[in-house]
Amino acid sequence: MEIWHPFTQHGLNEDIIEIETSEKEFLITKSGRKIIDGISSWWVNTLGHKNPEISTAIKKEADKLHQIIFAGFVHEPSKSVAKNLGSFLPADYTHIFFSDSGSTSVEVALKMAVGYHYNHGSSRSKIVAMEHSYHGDTFGGMSSGAKSVFNAPYVNMLFDVERIPYPKEGEEEETIKAYKNLLKKEGDKIGAIILEPLVLGSGGMLFYKPFVIEELYKLSKEYGVIFALDEVMTGFGRTGTMFAFNQTNIIPDIICLSKGLTGGSIPLAATVCKKEIYDAYLSNDKAKMFFHSSSYTANPIACAAANANLEIWKNNDILADVKRINDFYKNQIPRFKNLPAKNVRILGNIFAFDVQNEGNDYISNIGIKLYGYYRNNDILLRPLGNTVYVMPPYCISEDSLNKIFNVIEKSLRECL
Amino acid sequence: MEIWHPFTQHGLNEDIIEIETSEKEFLITKSGRKIIDGISSWWVNTLGHKNPEISTAIKKEADKLHQIIFAGFVHEPSKSVAKNLGSFLPADYTHIFFSDSGSTSVEVALKMAVGYHYNHGSSRSKIVAMEHSYHGDTFGGMSSGAKSVFNAPYVNMLFDVERIPYPKEGEEEETIKAYKNLLKKEGDKIGAIILEPLVLGSGGMLFYKPFVIEELYKLSKEYGVIFALDEVMTGFGRTGTMFAFNQTNIIPDIICLSKGLTGGSIPLAATVCKKEIYDAYLSNDKAKMFFHSSSYTANPIACAAANANLEIWKNNDILADVKRINDFYKNQIPRFKNLPAKNVRILGNIFAFDVQNEGNDYISNIGIKLYGYYRNNDILLRPLGNTVYVMPPYCISEDSLNKIFNVIEKSLRECL
Repeated sequence: MEIWHPFTQHGLNEDIIEIETSEKEFLITKSGRKIIDGISSWWVNTLGHKNPEISTAIKKEADKLHQIIFAGFVHEPSKSVAKNLGSFLPADYTHIFFSDSGSTSVEVALKMAVGYHYNHGSSRSKIVAMEHSYHGDTFGGMSSGAKSVFNAPYVNMLFDVERIPYPKEGEEEETIKAYKNLLKKEGDKIGAIILEPLVLGSGGMLFYKPFVIEELYKLSKEYGVIFALDEVMTGFGRTGTMFAFNQTNIIPDIICLSKGLTGGSIPLAATVCKKEIYDAYLSNDKAKMFFHSSSYTANPIACAAANANLEIWKNNDILADVKRINDFYKNQIPRFKNLPAKNVRILGNIFAFDVQNEGNDYISNIGIKLYGYYRNNDILLRPLGNTVYVMPPYCISEDSLNKIFNVIEKSLRECL
Repeated sequence: MEIWHPFTQHGLNEDIIEIETSEKEFLITKSGRKIIDGISSWWVNTLGHKNPEISTAIKKEADKLHQIIFAGFVHEPSKSVAKNLGSFLPADYTHIFFSDSGSTSVEVALKMAVGYHYNHGSSRSKIVAMEHSYHGDTFGGMSSGAKSVFNAPYVNMLFDVERIPYPKEGEEEETIKAYKNLLKKEGDKIGAIILEPLVLGSGGMLFYKPFVIEELYKLSKEYGVIFALDEVMTGFGRTGTMFAFNQTNIIPDIICLSKGLTGGSIPLAATVCKKEIYDAYLSNDKAKMFFHSSSYTANPIACAAANANLEIWKNNDILADVKRINDFYKNQIPRFKNLPAKNVRILGNIFAFDVQNEGNDYISNIGIKLYGYYRNNDILLRPLGNTVYVMPPYCISEDSLNKIFNVIEKSLRECL
């Protein structure tokens, strides 16, 4: 059998590069070719590839406990994740529910929220999401995400979601107003709102201001809507704080975590919620329990990796590295002045710009062309349409950062 | 933070047992209490807990490669899974798509099938599934699964699925006729049929005959419907053959695999398909690609575990162990003659019966009572309503099997 790769048009015969090993910001082939991973392997890796402390934790647990059933049984690695992750979160978060991937952490969040209302005797099941949003590729995630070429074949199979506009700078009030109107009209039908906080990732690295989150939260509380943040990409330092919501004065009801949770080593996801949500399920009635599981809920080896990751966060100033990268980005702005780049923008560990005079759809030609150019220059960057972004592991060296930006500058001179 | 366990009503204050380590068929607590895992930790574990060869493979890969992006890049462990798994499958299967859990392997299968029609210019997106079926807890999985207390809060969010009846012994023709009528009526709207082959698991270990699968397949081909089998539970020996479909004379278009793929050690799933499906996406048009991924697609460490598992299958007669257990089961039948048990049934590694005069809903009291009784006797069995089933790791000793059946017999005398 052959491999069918994700988000890949095999008909274009793209060269698929075999990676032998990895280290820090590098993907390394058998022949020793080193490719700088400028997008943290799709935003998954945070601390650098093959972190030795995470490797050690995985190996130790592999000798101790593999998957076991997680109903009626528990294990130390999962208890430690609850405790260690909790130490980075406000005490408002009382419960953690485990799954395997970003998509499933969102599915769990949506189910938790709608089931919350159901157990309170209400049929509020409508979801609100943002235009241009992305919440994963399973059916719940696709339903919440923007309608696009990604999910066109499946539109008849997706549940209805109400959209509020992306709060573009200067147009934030429109977003808030749209949500307010929606709540006025059918607030009693709406179960939850789910958002990518501060940045819409796949939508094109579209940033927006923390105060929008605060206002949407306030409105949600006024109308009894569960407020969920999809921190799968933003969690673990991406936006400059441990979680994106840390840049607001609110505490969302639910947050979804995955990629950075194990440092991007092995599959694990968590949906974290406030006591109020959990309590809606707490009863002596078995029919009120939360009916969700997956084959590998709270895998002990994945939990051990997460604990090693959280220990690293506890014992090191990882955010200082994010700030170092952020400072480096700021110094790059001048060189984009005379290049065909617009909307040059920076948020935490993310640098992004749009190529001028190019379509911004996901499958645009300029994105494909630049992707190939960067790869030929030993740099992994995967433009989203005409949006080029950089989002490396936090341990990236200044030398590698310079290489990335030199190649980007060259690409804008040579590829257009 | 505290842990919110899957499929658990925490309000009932069930004692949650902490497991320190595991070995073969045993879950072991810190104090040395050994619990016989009579259901393979929710059907996940096949070869026995903490298989040493799988541990070794995990440890080796942990030092070599953690998660990397899987679009445009590949690694040896994933290539080996494709090759090794392929050696157990007919050559008709040309492609493998990776994800993380049973649920996501089903989501991928449904998307593959519907996208197949879409890329052929058709909007056939209706799914057919069986009554009492279970295909996971994500929205696509819930939609395909039977409507029940499991998904009651979410009914408005599930896509429409056409149901055919469970082909109970003697009533198989009804199922086949129902499908035929459905196809006659709206065959041009139906994109795919998805089935748990030979046994509906969560539905209550309901067995059915291989010829039904053959007939449903034939009809599907007549009407151009994609035929998918959810082998998440049945795969890797559960029903007495490597895959359940091996007991038929047909080759499904798509099969979903997860639990036994890594021997039940760490999260990995695969959706395997025929060339015809893959070819529908193959184009120079980027919009025709398969738009699906997850944070941890084809995790190298999980792939390494899968390869170790597949090596064990290659080098050992694992099915002989399944047969040994099956033979043991057959010898148990007489002792159920004078017990309040009906529909005593055996399929491969699965033994099941229904408690007489009890409701068969998932949350029935007899199931809860028996579960507690078994746990107090150091045996993990989790009845589904009034259905008690045994499905242990294949390495289980005769001594442990005897213990299980002695306790079951006792339970039927003491608990009712």
